[in-house]
Amino acid sequence: MALILNAWYVAAWPHEVSAEKLLSRTICALPMVFFRDAQGKASALEDRCCHREMPLSQGWMESCTVRCGYHGMRFDGAGQCVEIPGQEFIPPGAKVIAYPVVERHGWIWVWPGDASRADPKLIPEMFARNDHPDWTSVGGTTYVRGHYELISDNLLDLTHETFIHRESLGNQAVIDHPIEVEHTDSTVTVQRWMFNHEPAPFWKRNLFLKLGRDVPADRWQIINFAPPANIVLDVGVAPTGMGAREGNRGAGCEGCNLNAITPETEDSTWYFWAFARRFQREDEALSKKLIEQVAGIFEQDRVAIEGVHETMKRNRGRPVIHLIADKGQNLARRMVEGVAENEAANR
Amino acid sequence: MALILNAWYVAAWPHEVSAEKLLSRTICALPMVFFRDAQGKASALEDRCCHREMPLSQGWMESCTVRCGYHGMRFDGAGQCVEIPGQEFIPPGAKVIAYPVVERHGWIWVWPGDASRADPKLIPEMFARNDHPDWTSVGGTTYVRGHYELISDNLLDLTHETFIHRESLGNQAVIDHPIEVEHTDSTVTVQRWMFNHEPAPFWKRNLFLKLGRDVPADRWQIINFAPPANIVLDVGVAPTGMGAREGNRGAGCEGCNLNAITPETEDSTWYFWAFARRFQREDEALSKKLIEQVAGIFEQDRVAIEGVHETMKRNRGRPVIHLIADKGQNLARRMVEGVAENEAANR
Amino acid sequence: MALILNAWYVAAWPHEVSAEKLLSRTICALPMVFFRDAQGKASALEDRCCHREMPLSQGWMESCTVRCGYHGMRFDGAGQCVEIPGQEFIPPGAKVIAYPVVERHGWIWVWPGDASRADPKLIPEMFARNDHPDWTSVGGTTYVRGHYELISDNLLDLTHETFIHRESLGNQAVIDHPIEVEHTDSTVTVQRWMFNHEPAPFWKRNLFLKLGRDVPADRWQIINFAPPANIVLDVGVAPTGMGAREGNRGAGCEGCNLNAITPETEDSTWYFWAFARRFQREDEALSKKLIEQVAGIFEQDRVAIEGVHETMKRNRGRPVIHLIADKGQNLARRMVEGVAENEAANR
Repeated sequence: MALILNAWYVAAWPHEVSAEKLLSRTICALPMVFFRDAQGKASALEDRCCHREMPLSQGWMESCTVRCGYHGMRFDGAGQCVEIPGQEFIPPGAKVIAYPVVERHGWIWVWPGDASRADPKLIPEMFARNDHPDWTSVGGTTYVRGHYELISDNLLDLTHETFIHRESLGNQAVIDHPIEVEHTDSTVTVQRWMFNHEPAPFWKRNLFLKLGRDVPADRWQIINFAPPANIVLDVGVAPTGMGAREGNRGAGCEGCNLNAITPETEDSTWYFWAFARRFQREDEALSKKLIEQVAGIFEQDRVAIEGVHETMKRNRGRPVIHLIADKGQNLARRMVEGVAENEAANR
Repeated sequence: MALILNAWYVAAWPHEVSAEKLLSRTICALPMVFFRDAQGKASALEDRCCHREMPLSQGWMESCTVRCGYHGMRFDGAGQCVEIPGQEFIPPGAKVIAYPVVERHGWIWVWPGDASRADPKLIPEMFARNDHPDWTSVGGTTYVRGHYELISDNLLDLTHETFIHRESLGNQAVIDHPIEVEHTDSTVTVQRWMFNHEPAPFWKRNLFLKLGRDVPADRWQIINFAPPANIVLDVGVAPTGMGAREGNRGAGCEGCNLNAITPETEDSTWYFWAFARRFQREDEALSKKLIEQVAGIFEQDRVAIEGVHETMKRNRGRPVIHLIADKGQNLARRMVEGVAENEAANR
Repeated sequence: MALILNAWYVAAWPHEVSAEKLLSRTICALPMVFFRDAQGKASALEDRCCHREMPLSQGWMESCTVRCGYHGMRFDGAGQCVEIPGQEFIPPGAKVIAYPVVERHGWIWVWPGDASRADPKLIPEMFARNDHPDWTSVGGTTYVRGHYELISDNLLDLTHETFIHRESLGNQAVIDHPIEVEHTDSTVTVQRWMFNHEPAPFWKRNLFLKLGRDVPADRWQIINFAPPANIVLDVGVAPTGMGAREGNRGAGCEGCNLNAITPETEDSTWYFWAFARRFQREDEALSKKLIEQVAGIFEQDRVAIEGVHETMKRNRGRPVIHLIADKGQNLARRMVEGVAENEAANR
């Protein structure tokens, strides 16, 4: 199945893109180079000079434009050539593809497809908590040698926590409590509530940190998916019996895992993730520890996903069996398939 | 030419397979995972969970069953799922391929093809000396990035000893003495006798060790081949004139090189070998030295075979010339071709 | 576009080829092995034994012939088998391809195509200065993972010096002065004259070395191309106003860059280069420094060319724009295309 091009994808963290140094990154199999202009606006150009096909990423920034490192042509953020050394006349074809770029929700987004459809309103609002004043968000990037949908699969069925993350997020409670699945035409929601149990190590540590003591807890996992691969998890624990399910979560630890999953190629993925929280917000040591812990957890997922990817490539078309817990990922996969088919039909 | 699947292949040494730790190994391009059940019986499953295609080798052993490391499904040695975490019902499709496995002649054998044909009687008796009370056998594994038939070629024409193994097995006598070739419908035998000569270094050392002095020797090489790539070499030296050819070999050094050659893929091979002997049987220092020496000799072959493999791949279909000494390997190749064609026709 | 086989290519420096040790090198996708016979004449054989396809380069030299390292067949410089161990009769097919080889102009040339057309008169005379008594020549080899024509492109448009070699050969003068392009049916000449300027660092150093002071200079770049990829650059600087353009260059630094560009495969190139000079000819420290400097400059080109090669492979068939300075390389590319088409038509 072809990659979906007409979509906004996170391409980078804001600090990765500057007016001084080019960032080279491939998005949806399209090599791009990212930089900022004099006003700080981020741009993305095709990583290929229109003259002799030199990667622009082998050039350098000069006056907030890209200098090709071979014969010195210079391009602005719109991809227009603004200088040809040794030649006054700039031919009409002297331009490179510029991809629409928007900076929002603490990330830099790029639209690799038809630029005329790149409406910034389509950038998923579900990621607003990444730079929302009521939340403290920290994050990182995990590079995965696997198809991007395998990460959606992973996040939409958290029974794997009990096995892959048995020392942090997983325990028997995760598999003992059934999921509830809902969906609209363009979203899937998977929900699991675990009442009155001893929470898994990650949450137990955080709840203890907040309360100063161990208590039985109610835990929630509310997974929201929108194609191609935007996934936000409302997660947390609160002391049992305080009405967390009814919305009274303030006495507990309320977190939010934001996942922007961007295909590099059909076989590799830039996985941008963040963990936003409403507890111990000013605790910078906790922020640092959370980055380390979440990175460590996704590193375990990476190993599993890369294993699955290799096996799937060798076994294309062979059936698999489906379990009850797969309902969310199966809905999501059909939704992605529909979007991709629709895009292919309108190409 | 396709690999032959309906055959017993050595997959592992007994000590490599346990009830505690999974062994991942690819046989005939089929990734498998090997382990033992509570009774110690060895099993082989396809290295792919039937649920989300996780390699089972990334899981672990639990209660003498395989726990998939992703969502925790558990499989027994027959490939049957015996547990699905979070779900009572085990659907009928919840099983993975189990390959027939038999432990015999000091090796673990697997049948990668049609399980209904996997008759243990087809395990080649020619390897009986690998754990026979009259012989002491030691061995090892050499991994070769080359087609498995190149190893048969190598063993069926020992003139190469004079060049590749000139410091151990080879000397002028090997090329000066002609071979005799015989065959049935399903075996090839190549024989070379070298009478009354100064033996090559490897044999000279062993004969000296036994006799305490240098003597002129008669040397034999009797190579028995059966498809796909089972090869046993009766080899040895005895003092000249004692009737070794007539069967009186006890005064000399009687050895036996057992070679079970297992395709990993069409381009790589697990080469299991052993050296059994009837001389200095209790000498453990000699056992250790023999492993080192034979491993060193096959390492020289590996380098040659990998060179040939690369050249052959670049030159498919180009003719080669044949020499007198090739007669055995040419018969063997035709035999293998016949078996493969027969298998393809009956698929 | 297929590689041109009916041409002389530099395969090696004379010191790389000996009667004692085989040199393995692939030319135009043909693996070859180079050596010298008892008279010192260089030979090239296909790197594949005609018996079991062992790479001859895994064998060794014996009596100025090649001993195959597998079953010991021996071949002379004409590719004829002269010994088969264990067999008296040498069958008529016991030979390997011998490629025509000529040693001339300080290099060893090979003709990978139809041997009947390998006229030594076709070896390009333009390289005569590599071992001419009036010149001192030093050189080296740069291995490039890129198509060989990208090196021609590079040498035929020196505006890149201002960007890639801005610390050695490049300055503003290079791009400020236009080129003049001439061609015949089988050669292209690109010329650039820069009068009365402060020369680029590389030339400034050399002119200072000769004159003992800085002076304004006239600089020339006269690039001569002949297919497939033979390129000689007359280059140099002389004090302004002494008539360098009219031929009076003795007061300056007269150099000559010889470039023999040999495809290893369609994706990789042996780039043999030399720098011949008529100034400070006996200065061995300068010779050493020139090798280092020119190697460093071509190393910068290598990085650029490999970048271009990768981008081109991903973008086959996509148009590029052409600039005024491309005229020479575009003529050369059409010439190479004509030769290749002609060769394909006559195959």
